[in-house]
Amino acid sequence: MDLSKFQQEFSEYKEAQSIIREPKNLYEPINYILNLEGKKIRPVLTLIAANLFSSTYKKALPAAYAVEMFHNFTLVHDDIMDDAPLRRGKVTVHEKWNINAGILSGDAMLIIAYQYFENYPAEIFQKLAKLFNKTAVEVFDGQQLDVDFETRNNVTIEEYIQMISLKTSVLIGTALKMGAIVANAEEAEAQKLYDFGLNLGIAFQLQDDFLDTYGNPKTFGKQVGGDIIENKKTYLYLKALELSNSDDHKILTNYYQEKLEDSQEKINSVRLLFDKYEIPSYIKALMNDYSLKAFSILETMSIDISAKKSLLDFGKSLMTRNV
Amino acid sequence: MDLSKFQQEFSEYKEAQSIIREPKNLYEPINYILNLEGKKIRPVLTLIAANLFSSTYKKALPAAYAVEMFHNFTLVHDDIMDDAPLRRGKVTVHEKWNINAGILSGDAMLIIAYQYFENYPAEIFQKLAKLFNKTAVEVFDGQQLDVDFETRNNVTIEEYIQMISLKTSVLIGTALKMGAIVANAEEAEAQKLYDFGLNLGIAFQLQDDFLDTYGNPKTFGKQVGGDIIENKKTYLYLKALELSNSDDHKILTNYYQEKLEDSQEKINSVRLLFDKYEIPSYIKALMNDYSLKAFSILETMSIDISAKKSLLDFGKSLMTRNV
Repeated sequence: MDLSKFQQEFSEYKEAQSIIREPKNLYEPINYILNLEGKKIRPVLTLIAANLFSSTYKKALPAAYAVEMFHNFTLVHDDIMDDAPLRRGKVTVHEKWNINAGILSGDAMLIIAYQYFENYPAEIFQKLAKLFNKTAVEVFDGQQLDVDFETRNNVTIEEYIQMISLKTSVLIGTALKMGAIVANAEEAEAQKLYDFGLNLGIAFQLQDDFLDTYGNPKTFGKQVGGDIIENKKTYLYLKALELSNSDDHKILTNYYQEKLEDSQEKINSVRLLFDKYEIPSYIKALMNDYSLKAFSILETMSIDISAKKSLLDFGKSLMTRNV
Repeated sequence: MDLSKFQQEFSEYKEAQSIIREPKNLYEPINYILNLEGKKIRPVLTLIAANLFSSTYKKALPAAYAVEMFHNFTLVHDDIMDDAPLRRGKVTVHEKWNINAGILSGDAMLIIAYQYFENYPAEIFQKLAKLFNKTAVEVFDGQQLDVDFETRNNVTIEEYIQMISLKTSVLIGTALKMGAIVANAEEAEAQKLYDFGLNLGIAFQLQDDFLDTYGNPKTFGKQVGGDIIENKKTYLYLKALELSNSDDHKILTNYYQEKLEDSQEKINSVRLLFDKYEIPSYIKALMNDYSLKAFSILETMSIDISAKKSLLDFGKSLMTRNV
């Protein structure tokens, strides 16, 4: 099955959903964020997963839509918390409207996501909602750790991986497992897909961190260097701290304690230090480790080879993206 | 069944739930708001409703807890949007921590509410979650209308009743209907309870509006006159506009277009105008209408007389409260 087919299928389903309701001040921001062209990674994973176990993968469309809606809800609320000006190259919801609109439309998106489970019979509904509940709490825990790390100076690489695992990867795993649930897969197989997604998700987030500093400003969608400006203690920074000599260690920690007017000079200097200690090589090696772990889990699954290949291809396409 | 028994039962269940988890910056605000002593109206209604149809009303405790959790979530997010300093006589979550803590802990409370439905078998789970989904969206619609009304000068009394119905009353109806669902009541009877709650809830909110201006500052918990300071277009204001002569009309609309330094003078003047047009009598008459409508729905239900009496008593106790 061709990936672009799933993307197309999902886009058509998404277009057919009407979120245009009254009061318009509540639903316009929802339409706005949903219509910023995203990568549709999570809903496509749900469809791919359903297709592994069932010939009628289209019945996974409501679950795929719920995952995409939840993901967009987290973007709206996280962008408020991070005071982010841009999302997918466009102005964020709270900047275009205001913080209150961001809070309330985000809340509504969270519930609308749950409403899409109503398309399924009670047993499937309950399985989906339970998984979704667990995942949502983990995503919030991850977001809180991310916030906490901003003011902590003793964050370890292990803690960082734990944080991105909660904040990002569990939803990748859940997107896949939901497809499996809808397609009535056995629990053990569904769980393997989840674990595959969890590891792939960590690789994916490490890639995202890499691109935040080393991406192409023309295609990245967010501000390149944004993590450095925000003093985000990503793997790049934590690994550089670990490897740097005492002078560079001091320079780095000093940079990450201030918000500078001229952020471009800071971005350039920090990036030079990352380069000096070959951090790009380290992060690529770690990404590779997690990707391989994901693919080895895939190997143990009792699905056919062409199905494995479609997941493998999708995983690889995520790892070689530059946006 | 004695009402205080239900309150006691719910308090014990609530105490036994542990929300103390890591990361503590996420769960401490949740504990804080849950431990501000509220009136427990909604969870008690869930227990009363379950008790009408089943001898094992205790199985409604998780549903009652979910309703209380959801209600507290709305308080945390609404207090951010309203910039409210006090809640239940104590400082609000976003004032005690910050806006980000209020957003994220509110989000988590919403999901934790759903998690309590996991205590029920799939069919009940789905019924509860569907009702909850519908209600949550209505509550958000109501909150949005409330926000919209702040900047509109042509709000009608009918629109105002619609807004409070969505923002407040649907959750009262839902609290009751959830108890009925858990106790396996027939849909028609469960729906009557919902309609009873919807009308009682409107009376309850009108009472709240009355107390906001005419309550006892020592027992009210919020700032008396808060709605006047915030230029909230409640029934008191809208009815006064309808009845006032052109001079008073101008005075009122002028007051409601500015935020004054000396708000006490504004509160006093506006209250005098309300008194002049006997608005307290009008609002009490309207409260009475909705209460009677609620009680007449109760009459049509095929539950026993003592059960009706317990609901009637609870409804009446809400209508004669002064806090």
